[in-house]
Amino acid sequence: MKLVPLFDRVVLKQLVAEETTKSGIVLPGQAKEKPQQAEVIAVGPGGVVDGKEIKMQVKPGDKVIYSKYSGTEVKVEEEDYIIVKQNDILAVIE
Amino acid sequence: MKLVPLFDRVVLKQLVAEETTKSGIVLPGQAKEKPQQAEVIAVGPGGVVDGKEIKMQVKPGDKVIYSKYSGTEVKVEEEDYIIVKQNDILAVIE
Amino acid sequence: MKLVPLFDRVVLKQLVAEETTKSGIVLPGQAKEKPQQAEVIAVGPGGVVDGKEIKMQVKPGDKVIYSKYSGTEVKVEEEDYIIVKQNDILAVIE
Amino acid sequence: MKLVPLFDRVVLKQLVAEETTKSGIVLPGQAKEKPQQAEVIAVGPGGVVDGKEIKMQVKPGDKVIYSKYSGTEVKVEEEDYIIVKQNDILAVIE
Amino acid sequence: MKLVPLFDRVVLKQLVAEETTKSGIVLPGQAKEKPQQAEVIAVGPGGVVDGKEIKMQVKPGDKVIYSKYSGTEVKVEEEDYIIVKQNDILAVIE
Amino acid sequence: MKLVPLFDRVVLKQLVAEETTKSGIVLPGQAKEKPQQAEVIAVGPGGVVDGKEIKMQVKPGDKVIYSKYSGTEVKVEEEDYIIVKQNDILAVIE
Amino acid sequence: MKLVPLFDRVVLKQLVAEETTKSGIVLPGQAKEKPQQAEVIAVGPGGVVDGKEIKMQVKPGDKVIYSKYSGTEVKVEEEDYIIVKQNDILAVIE
Repeated sequence: MKLVPLFDRVVLKQLVAEETTKSGIVLPGQAKEKPQQAEVIAVGPGGVVDGKEIKMQVKPGDKVIYSKYSGTEVKVEEEDYIIVKQNDILAVIE
Repeated sequence: MKLVPLFDRVVLKQLVAEETTKSGIVLPGQAKEKPQQAEVIAVGPGGVVDGKEIKMQVKPGDKVIYSKYSGTEVKVEEEDYIIVKQNDILAVIE
Repeated sequence: MKLVPLFDRVVLKQLVAEETTKSGIVLPGQAKEKPQQAEVIAVGPGGVVDGKEIKMQVKPGDKVIYSKYSGTEVKVEEEDYIIVKQNDILAVIE
Repeated sequence: MKLVPLFDRVVLKQLVAEETTKSGIVLPGQAKEKPQQAEVIAVGPGGVVDGKEIKMQVKPGDKVIYSKYSGTEVKVEEEDYIIVKQNDILAVIE
Repeated sequence: MKLVPLFDRVVLKQLVAEETTKSGIVLPGQAKEKPQQAEVIAVGPGGVVDGKEIKMQVKPGDKVIYSKYSGTEVKVEEEDYIIVKQNDILAVIE
Repeated sequence: MKLVPLFDRVVLKQLVAEETTKSGIVLPGQAKEKPQQAEVIAVGPGGVVDGKEIKMQVKPGDKVIYSKYSGTEVKVEEEDYIIVKQNDILAVIE
Repeated sequence: MKLVPLFDRVVLKQLVAEETTKSGIVLPGQAKEKPQQAEVIAVGPGGVVDGKEIKMQVKPGDKVIYSKYSGTEVKVEEEDYIIVKQNDILAVIE
């Protein structure tokens, strides 16, 4: 069973807090818009979305910072995922 | 009697919670925007919607995750359906 | 006396609840956005509406599901009608 | 003294309730968006409005249904008028 | 000292209530959006405003009805003026 | 040290109240949207802003009326400035 | 570890208050939209964003004034950064 996102949507797997801390990224709890570190699991095909051509810039395996509140949480086979639009991804962590 | 959606609308049949659990998907009850698993029943023709060309990406029989609050519930011959815009479908489950 | 809608507007006659029940459609009373079954009475000419070319997809006599709250109720010669934009019609019932 | 509307605006004269009743149209008082019957007095030239070409579809003398709350009431030489955008006119009564 | 409006802005001088009454126009005090009678003092050059070509349709000396709440009041050399966008002018009074 | 505005932004220096009064302009304190008199200090390059070509119409040294609440106040080397978008400038004072 | 912004996003490092004061810029604490002085750390590639071609106008090392509330704060390896869209940068300080 696999989530195949439509259009410019991206399936993310949130990196757990412990791992996050180890990698040196701490997300400030008091921020109004909570940024989140996650791994890209699946990427939609892009194409014309809402009348605009969108090219996908991220790929599975990328680690990214995204805006939590724009995403939708789903649980598939005991795993939690977040589905966001690519535009809700702020930066790739290299 | 049959629902024929206009434009980019899609008729969905929500998969019952029991089946959902068996398939391994659990929808978190506390999420603000509740995602939903459903089967595609009928798909509008797409075309120019609000001045933008829209191609339909889903087909009857697809299982999908959608954003519940954007849809409209109807009951036809004792069956409940949800009519959403295709853009409210987040991902196909394969 | 006749209502001739402008642009992409459509004049609907709501099907009475009794007829609705007989035809097997029951509209859930608790839904936030109440869907409605109605018959199309008159259809505007379409054309360029708000800068966008709109083709009319429904015709008088069609039975449709529409979103109630987007329409405007009028009473002409003791008959109640609802005037909606075509985009507020979700599906045709065949 | 004469009101010459700009762009896509239309000057309307509301038909009095008595005449309205005689003509068989009763406007429901409980409707959230009160529709109104009126006669077209003057019509703007149309043309490019907000970047979009608008053709005027109504002419002086037409009886129309319009959405009251979008208009602006003015009184000229003891007569009340309403100035609306053409798009606030829902239908012509023939 | 002179106010030269930019883009599609128009400088208006509100006609005093006494003159207004004499000319037969009474503005209803209870209207939610208070219309106002004024004389055009200066007119911006128009041109491309927010990506759209705008032609100015009014000229200094025109008497107009405008929507009060869209304008900005300024006082220059003991005179009060209102600066509105041309689109806030509803009609010219001839 | 110098502020170089980006895009269609303009750096303004508010004219002090005393000078304002001398020049004959009094800003009404009770106005909901407080207009302000200021001198243009620096002007962005214009160009394509948010997909629209914008030409700068003001230049350093111009005295202008602007809408206060759209700007951002900054203090550089003990001097207060306001950075606004050109579209928040209502008129030039000549 | 490095933050690589997507599209028109820019990674900023806020200049500390002490340094800010030394450089002569004081940010008024009572301003509703708090401007902020920061250094540009990384700049997205620009390109077509939301259907519009965007060219990046800032480069790493630039000192800029930005609107704080549009950004998202992240902490990477004990350093705090802010990710903003380029359009939230008001001016470059030279």
